[in-house]
Amino acid sequence: MRINRQRLEESMTALGRIGETPAGGLSRLALTDEDRRGRDVLVEWMRAAGLTVTVDRMGNIFGQRDGSESLPPVMMGSHADSVPTGGKYDGQLGVLCALETVRSLNDHKTTTRHPVTVAIFTNEEGARFQPAMIGSGVLAGKIALEDAYNARDRDGIRLGDALERIGYLGPEPCIPRPLRAYLELHIEQGPILEEQHLSVGVVEGIVAISWSRLVLTGVQDHAGPTPMRIRKDALVAAADIVRGVREIPRRIGGDMVATVGRLDVTPNIPNAIPGRVVMSIDLRAPDEHHVTRAIGLLDRLVKDTARADGVTYELDHYWRVPRTHFDLEVVDTIEQAAKETAAGYRRILSGAGHDAQYMAAICPTGMIFVPSRNGRSHCEEEFTPMDDIEHGANTLLLAATRLAGAA
Amino acid sequence: MRINRQRLEESMTALGRIGETPAGGLSRLALTDEDRRGRDVLVEWMRAAGLTVTVDRMGNIFGQRDGSESLPPVMMGSHADSVPTGGKYDGQLGVLCALETVRSLNDHKTTTRHPVTVAIFTNEEGARFQPAMIGSGVLAGKIALEDAYNARDRDGIRLGDALERIGYLGPEPCIPRPLRAYLELHIEQGPILEEQHLSVGVVEGIVAISWSRLVLTGVQDHAGPTPMRIRKDALVAAADIVRGVREIPRRIGGDMVATVGRLDVTPNIPNAIPGRVVMSIDLRAPDEHHVTRAIGLLDRLVKDTARADGVTYELDHYWRVPRTHFDLEVVDTIEQAAKETAAGYRRILSGAGHDAQYMAAICPTGMIFVPSRNGRSHCEEEFTPMDDIEHGANTLLLAATRLAGAA
Repeated sequence: MRINRQRLEESMTALGRIGETPAGGLSRLALTDEDRRGRDVLVEWMRAAGLTVTVDRMGNIFGQRDGSESLPPVMMGSHADSVPTGGKYDGQLGVLCALETVRSLNDHKTTTRHPVTVAIFTNEEGARFQPAMIGSGVLAGKIALEDAYNARDRDGIRLGDALERIGYLGPEPCIPRPLRAYLELHIEQGPILEEQHLSVGVVEGIVAISWSRLVLTGVQDHAGPTPMRIRKDALVAAADIVRGVREIPRRIGGDMVATVGRLDVTPNIPNAIPGRVVMSIDLRAPDEHHVTRAIGLLDRLVKDTARADGVTYELDHYWRVPRTHFDLEVVDTIEQAAKETAAGYRRILSGAGHDAQYMAAICPTGMIFVPSRNGRSHCEEEFTPMDDIEHGANTLLLAATRLAGAA
Repeated sequence: MRINRQRLEESMTALGRIGETPAGGLSRLALTDEDRRGRDVLVEWMRAAGLTVTVDRMGNIFGQRDGSESLPPVMMGSHADSVPTGGKYDGQLGVLCALETVRSLNDHKTTTRHPVTVAIFTNEEGARFQPAMIGSGVLAGKIALEDAYNARDRDGIRLGDALERIGYLGPEPCIPRPLRAYLELHIEQGPILEEQHLSVGVVEGIVAISWSRLVLTGVQDHAGPTPMRIRKDALVAAADIVRGVREIPRRIGGDMVATVGRLDVTPNIPNAIPGRVVMSIDLRAPDEHHVTRAIGLLDRLVKDTARADGVTYELDHYWRVPRTHFDLEVVDTIEQAAKETAAGYRRILSGAGHDAQYMAAICPTGMIFVPSRNGRSHCEEEFTPMDDIEHGANTLLLAATRLAGAA
């Protein structure tokens, strides 16, 4: 049994047009009109493939193909939102490979014992609403529905209102349910598979992640007549912290990474000394303890910098995801499937968070990676060769079919 | 002859309500609805004071009180726009003291030989449209009208369109005209007058100013799976430059100041390595040569940092205003007036750019400073005691009357 490469590629092309950027990337932020149009197309395709479509109260979409028995389903999925000026592979490739799996089961008139479900999770990226992976987080019982509804974007729009506006505030409860397994195909977003000329990564788990928000308050003043000696410049303090965060991985060692991705200045005009800076700090490591140590270093860095630069601060470590270990049986099943598709593969760890992280808390979970050219993602240059995608999709098809059981 | 303090204070209070922030500051960005409402009120007051009001093609507003002879007018004025979350003194105080001067001449039925004109200049702050002081810049022939019209705000709105939208694209040509003198009362925006318990600064000139725009381009990528060793983070490079800019005044010496006031990150989300940063660099010094040397240091800093951090850049020194020396006769007249009002005063240099800078190119010009509490401006905490304002306004009244000549 093999997937239909041409059909998969055509679906990628068609969906990729929704929110396409002039440079060929994708801007389809969660719960925007582009997201709605992407969802509409996917729901239409699911129904055309004979799936029963339901939408839950977080806007997560499920398309179920019945099994021969009344058993918990094998769920496959990912997300359809993107970052701003992102790429056409992160997220939607996993959804389309899940859909292609169902279409291939239909082609071969294969009946499985367990139902097989395609899932699309809301706001995985965390680009518009924080935290990231909020749809799967609520489903797994890790984020309260009310907290998710009250998340606000930069314009102050509530997630709950945005969900309703695009027509995807569904009636189904968003709560944990019995699942045979959860499988997610995703691009690696790192350089390893490409460097080693491999098509498939059998993902054993996800690194530990911590997100912090730092507000620095100095004294807003005129950039001209204010002598250097009396300035309390919030951006100068922020610059020290950006440099200090960059140094944290060197001090911790291992494969730790640390990033300041967001930084907003107030009032942000050429002739005013910045009075306020809000910034994000993202810390990740395969070793849980390294993240804990990094947070300690960050606390110290912020405290010392604030004192030296004469500013005050609020530092909030508001989101933390522990190191995730995927299910041994599911990981072995994926590895066996990769072997059978004759794909070059290796076991690998994910440096990025995924919906699979939350799903692992409620059912046996595993992931399949395909390569990212130059290791790049969250950018318009995102690209995965079609040969690798075909290997990945066949691996997903075989693993899902095996876990769902022959009827 | 004295101004009417109570009337001036009432006008300050009434105008200060237009665009008032919850914390008692002012947000009245150029050519917004708030700016239009402020202009409407001022025009109404000018007409009530018997002035003939004209508006030029840059939206600069002039209210003329005729003299006994057909001579070039003495012009007094400032601007009515503010920075975001700015204060109620920067700009509008100068306009209201000019209006109060005319009202006081009316009270005393004083006739002058030269006409006396109240002026309100468009977009002095440069907060919404760059460069700053664009209305007086066009009037002085230093900025082409078409270039001014084509300046765009962050949302891409053209200055020319914004001017038309608020109804202040006037019919009068915006070109240099014969003027007896230009006088501008303004807050000091620095700490000197307050520290020395003085009410009035007799301004001898304005420091040299340079504005640069720097675009840093790195590689946008995912903050998780991208190893530190392969990153090209535009914000890390920007942080180095913010620190380096802070060091420039220490290396140059004198009263030089240097500020990064604006910094915008792309894509500006927690989990993407910044691919692009746009930032402003503001350099000022009383000594023209110090600014030239500082630009050289900035060129070197950016070049070295870009190479070290693996990013590319574009650096544009797009605006430069030379050291301005005000007219000796006008400065002496202001000093004499300050003495006669019994105000504590000193001669002083302005660290901020003002419309007076451009006006000095076309007529004899001078400025009057009043103190800024804690030296602060461009913030909601801007404040000048009413006693000092009264001294400043009386100095303006006496100086303008003297320059306009008794009929």
